[in-house]
Amino acid sequence: VRAHVHRLPACSPDDVSALDVAFARGQIDAKSIVAILGKTEGNGCVNDFTRSFAVSALKASIAAQLGCAAIDLDRRIAFVMSGGTEGGLSPHWLVFEAREEQSEHVGEARLAIGVAFTPRLRPEHIGRREQITATALAVRDAMSQAQIASVDDVHYVQVKCPLLTRLRISEAEARGQSVATQDTYASMGVSRGAAALGVALSLGECDEERLSQGDAVCREPTIFSTRASCSAGVELMDSQIMVLGNSRAWSGNLVIGHGVMEDALDVDGVWKALALAGIADGGQLDAQCRSRIAAVLAKAEASTSGQIRGRRHIMLDDSDIPASRHARALVGGVLAGVFGDTQLFVSGGAEHQGPDGGGPIAVIAHCDPTPKGRAAAP
Amino acid sequence: VRAHVHRLPACSPDDVSALDVAFARGQIDAKSIVAILGKTEGNGCVNDFTRSFAVSALKASIAAQLGCAAIDLDRRIAFVMSGGTEGGLSPHWLVFEAREEQSEHVGEARLAIGVAFTPRLRPEHIGRREQITATALAVRDAMSQAQIASVDDVHYVQVKCPLLTRLRISEAEARGQSVATQDTYASMGVSRGAAALGVALSLGECDEERLSQGDAVCREPTIFSTRASCSAGVELMDSQIMVLGNSRAWSGNLVIGHGVMEDALDVDGVWKALALAGIADGGQLDAQCRSRIAAVLAKAEASTSGQIRGRRHIMLDDSDIPASRHARALVGGVLAGVFGDTQLFVSGGAEHQGPDGGGPIAVIAHCDPTPKGRAAAP
Amino acid sequence: VRAHVHRLPACSPDDVSALDVAFARGQIDAKSIVAILGKTEGNGCVNDFTRSFAVSALKASIAAQLGCAAIDLDRRIAFVMSGGTEGGLSPHWLVFEAREEQSEHVGEARLAIGVAFTPRLRPEHIGRREQITATALAVRDAMSQAQIASVDDVHYVQVKCPLLTRLRISEAEARGQSVATQDTYASMGVSRGAAALGVALSLGECDEERLSQGDAVCREPTIFSTRASCSAGVELMDSQIMVLGNSRAWSGNLVIGHGVMEDALDVDGVWKALALAGIADGGQLDAQCRSRIAAVLAKAEASTSGQIRGRRHIMLDDSDIPASRHARALVGGVLAGVFGDTQLFVSGGAEHQGPDGGGPIAVIAHCDPTPKGRAAAP
Amino acid sequence: VRAHVHRLPACSPDDVSALDVAFARGQIDAKSIVAILGKTEGNGCVNDFTRSFAVSALKASIAAQLGCAAIDLDRRIAFVMSGGTEGGLSPHWLVFEAREEQSEHVGEARLAIGVAFTPRLRPEHIGRREQITATALAVRDAMSQAQIASVDDVHYVQVKCPLLTRLRISEAEARGQSVATQDTYASMGVSRGAAALGVALSLGECDEERLSQGDAVCREPTIFSTRASCSAGVELMDSQIMVLGNSRAWSGNLVIGHGVMEDALDVDGVWKALALAGIADGGQLDAQCRSRIAAVLAKAEASTSGQIRGRRHIMLDDSDIPASRHARALVGGVLAGVFGDTQLFVSGGAEHQGPDGGGPIAVIAHCDPTPKGRAAAP
Repeated sequence: VRAHVHRLPACSPDDVSALDVAFARGQIDAKSIVAILGKTEGNGCVNDFTRSFAVSALKASIAAQLGCAAIDLDRRIAFVMSGGTEGGLSPHWLVFEAREEQSEHVGEARLAIGVAFTPRLRPEHIGRREQITATALAVRDAMSQAQIASVDDVHYVQVKCPLLTRLRISEAEARGQSVATQDTYASMGVSRGAAALGVALSLGECDEERLSQGDAVCREPTIFSTRASCSAGVELMDSQIMVLGNSRAWSGNLVIGHGVMEDALDVDGVWKALALAGIADGGQLDAQCRSRIAAVLAKAEASTSGQIRGRRHIMLDDSDIPASRHARALVGGVLAGVFGDTQLFVSGGAEHQGPDGGGPIAVIAHCDPTPKGRAAAP
Repeated sequence: VRAHVHRLPACSPDDVSALDVAFARGQIDAKSIVAILGKTEGNGCVNDFTRSFAVSALKASIAAQLGCAAIDLDRRIAFVMSGGTEGGLSPHWLVFEAREEQSEHVGEARLAIGVAFTPRLRPEHIGRREQITATALAVRDAMSQAQIASVDDVHYVQVKCPLLTRLRISEAEARGQSVATQDTYASMGVSRGAAALGVALSLGECDEERLSQGDAVCREPTIFSTRASCSAGVELMDSQIMVLGNSRAWSGNLVIGHGVMEDALDVDGVWKALALAGIADGGQLDAQCRSRIAAVLAKAEASTSGQIRGRRHIMLDDSDIPASRHARALVGGVLAGVFGDTQLFVSGGAEHQGPDGGGPIAVIAHCDPTPKGRAAAP
Repeated sequence: VRAHVHRLPACSPDDVSALDVAFARGQIDAKSIVAILGKTEGNGCVNDFTRSFAVSALKASIAAQLGCAAIDLDRRIAFVMSGGTEGGLSPHWLVFEAREEQSEHVGEARLAIGVAFTPRLRPEHIGRREQITATALAVRDAMSQAQIASVDDVHYVQVKCPLLTRLRISEAEARGQSVATQDTYASMGVSRGAAALGVALSLGECDEERLSQGDAVCREPTIFSTRASCSAGVELMDSQIMVLGNSRAWSGNLVIGHGVMEDALDVDGVWKALALAGIADGGQLDAQCRSRIAAVLAKAEASTSGQIRGRRHIMLDDSDIPASRHARALVGGVLAGVFGDTQLFVSGGAEHQGPDGGGPIAVIAHCDPTPKGRAAAP
Repeated sequence: VRAHVHRLPACSPDDVSALDVAFARGQIDAKSIVAILGKTEGNGCVNDFTRSFAVSALKASIAAQLGCAAIDLDRRIAFVMSGGTEGGLSPHWLVFEAREEQSEHVGEARLAIGVAFTPRLRPEHIGRREQITATALAVRDAMSQAQIASVDDVHYVQVKCPLLTRLRISEAEARGQSVATQDTYASMGVSRGAAALGVALSLGECDEERLSQGDAVCREPTIFSTRASCSAGVELMDSQIMVLGNSRAWSGNLVIGHGVMEDALDVDGVWKALALAGIADGGQLDAQCRSRIAAVLAKAEASTSGQIRGRRHIMLDDSDIPASRHARALVGGVLAGVFGDTQLFVSGGAEHQGPDGGGPIAVIAHCDPTPKGRAAAP
């Protein structure tokens, strides 16, 4: 089995023309797709409909290839859309394939992908222990799917988790249950936070005991995963988990590494991820290094202190532009300076995903500098 | 004569407490102030009142020190406010002093400051040849004030220029004159553009002949100054010019260098400015280098091609966040990654100020790594 | 033939559940649908993707009913989405049916609907005489379809017209043609304006001669149609025209009337439309009158004078919220005060559609106060 | 004593030119000013600096008249700025004078003004019983100042109350005290809510007992004042109260009436206020009635049900435009339709100020239709 990662441009939220071209040219095999991540150009907040528009268009395109209905793709492929391309971030798709290929086995650890789903969560479980536990189990399941034996070989865990709506709250309350928050926007945060703690638990980044001492979700910022990236969405009640790591059971020429940005300016964390992906330290990536990058995955958030390295930021005081939009723009700029590229998957809302004001960063790269049959990046 | 540059934090557009403290401690001499640049937290667009609020507060503070009326400061000190602190940019003041000090003369070229004013411009001259010529003459005047002999020693020219209002247009038309544009927002662009061409002409970056062949303002993007930084404001009809360069006639331990960012990600241009200011190439500045930085001055804009290095950006299509806000956020992030600091003077709207989608960058730095009597940066 | 108009709520841009319910209950016959107007909750500006998301969902729902492909609906049904539900405006669909029913012929003029399409326009024709002429011809065509003999019986003309993109401009220029404007956003205005002048010409609201004296589009605000409502969209190069009027050839119990709002506060214009639709003058509509309203269609824009009845407005100076959003919110509030209802089709951008700062208003109402088989409005 | 109310236009947040003209012409006596309300053109949210800019300019103008320092006006004149002029709302000042005039005593109840201040509140008291009680006492104090004997003669109570900042929270916590909320934005709501409950208590609109049963602030929407209008600001720690009513102790020709808008479209509530102010029911005010209006004061908010009369609104789901901005635009439009005027003081955030989604409305009017020495409204 071999992982393929395709980074395709999008001219609008429903522009799947690059995917259709890749199908037509035989570059992507629709049957092998296990996940699609998308950076879409909405506001990334509550009324961002670019995400569901994108999923609708992607499903239609893939269903046409497979000759099935769009709804049949639902527990088969993970679709994770992250809205918000502030600053210079460029809308794009990341298509993950797990192909049953007879490629030469390299004997080295290579990019491995596992996808799993939690059972449906009840509204009263969102943002609470039940969600943490269910997520942790699903992460183990996805690791097993990916044939990754050690948690040290896991470099990135993408979780798409549910949120509360007025209807879901009412349904729970009708059954005599209370929910974690009455505020539907805030429920996005606690769901992301609980999912991230589930990842942390699964990867041994925190222990059961610490979590069982009262409610840590969005209260204990010192407990976090360095590899979780969680997004909440209205369109599901289970959670979709994609684990990325390196495994000798996989072949091909892709590897993944990760680091942690301690704050929004922490370029050292980025360089650590690059080094683990086999790309050496230095200034901005040159054209050759840049051509080896298959995907950049990062999380961004405004530090709750109101400061970055002692300087005041205004993200949390701005009522015109939401803080998550500022944060994506900033981290997008910092990363663009390092990578010389704006096709970066920078997602907002990093509760328990790295330290306060920081976040995880993962890089997927090609091992060899001049691969056959692959075009150089522009 | 010796230049001093003070970089002071601001907690709101009218927060001049850091300036008042500096007066109280004798760190700044109000009589010596020649210019104040400010990065304020408004939207940087038409309805950004944080700029005039800031000027009002700064004038009141200085007038109180000097025992004069606020209005008396008008042709004496240049106040240039740039709105917009998107991403992580930190609101701050840059106070420029030219002190008649008996400091030891170093014999080396040191930071030199010159301030000059054009005559009042008529509405029909804004965005046209008359503004170009008047600006060019005032730049020469400011250079002479700064005792900078060669244009090669000029590294940064800040221009504050007027714009058209409905009233000004009517006044001109009543006299039978036409104006460059009926759109008051667009007049900010053509005024900045004409001012920048004036700087380019004065510094020998373009020749008379090329400008005289029809109207180049906002039409010929290949003609630009690599050292102009122009802002338009409603509160003046003349233009205020501040020239910064290095001159042997000045003493002290500050120097300035500049570079050009060819596009928003052009970190090499930043490093060129740093090298000219005596700070060696490398990754993100370490704490010692960072402590030597006195000011960072840059321009940002969205590339009109709709792309950055072949990747689509959405700045020009976004009707929620103006393109200039996206551009400041992006370049702010790129620079913050290099400097490890968000107290950066990044200004939007770079017509004829560097190439399309790029812009000038200047750095003022202390020559010696461990200056006496100066606190380390946080 | 008989017209039916259905006003259905939408919970999101792709929420067609009320339409699906109406199909299931036999309340709407998919074969008879000639047009759908929708008020969607995007920003109504360039990056408003809720419009195309809505069209995509509506087409899928109808195509499923008809057992055809979505693309087959393209020259058959006019889909006109208007983004922006500022203030209290409520997202909703207006579904227009022309049913071949054997209803008793009333002998009175009743709501008549005609739909027509212009040929494809070339980019160089947008915003110019060719677009005016083509629109005028198609309006006549749609009138004929609707069996409306006199222009006096036309009360509302909805036009969906094309706009310029970078690609379309390049294509025209490659053929040696110039276009009306290089600014793609501005092209929306000139296209709406030319379409409105086409309607005015067709309805005898201006004469050929006056239009042929130079370029009137967006220059002569005193020439306008009192019945045009034009929206520009990227997804077409022809124009879709829907004419609404009253005709004795149609049966049923719906009638339409129109008025003109001379400015944003012109409640008298609204009352004139109501009177023509058979609803008497008074204060806010009572529950019975409100239950007779089938649809309210209006245009809104910011007055270019910067004033409303001598009071300054800030719509044109606000760089955070586009002026068209302010205008929809204001007119939406004024109309909600009259109708006691927020399900109003208020669309922005009224070039040559009513006087400067005003716009057309049309009301479709049921003739009888207590119709059989129709639920009272909430 | 006689009340005068001046409604003056503003061209920017610091435009006090109309006030200066009124001083120069002797139309306003600076010594008699007791309060100034202002509608300024910021976003009305956290980072709205137009409010403090306006206060700064107003104080400077008045201090110049009185020959005192701006700071001397602090416990003497109430300055209440309400940011946000969405839709068509027009920025303006309402200057309230209480003049010791020897005017003929009319023997009828006339507009009476009383101003009072609470003691400084501690951070831990904001949004709690202590604030309710302190506000209630100050309202009684202001009533007494205004010589209004019965609570039935009170028609409007303007409160400016403090909010929590990070610093204030820390200070309280250092003393071992907890605060009502950690969220500084949310503290604006609970402070407004507690202030409104204080007004309700003072005017007999709720009883002690009901308030003492647990925490009602922002939890019991059915308890509210029909005459409170509360705004929170960062610049004070006490509260400023202005009571407006009718009293036989006052002369002149101004009266005030109030009503309650049950929801955003409740025009009947507006007509009730007009009737109490002596202006008869009807459609939109005609020019003569309009010329009698001295001030319109209203509160607006988004209904928490997400609906207005059964129709969905999107105010609470919009992450681009804050809900309070939508609400002001909507109610501004509804009122503009009635008054035929956009110079309306519509303020956002109506916790316990009228029913959920509604709010109080007060009208100050001249008793006689054609007063001497008063210009007709435009």
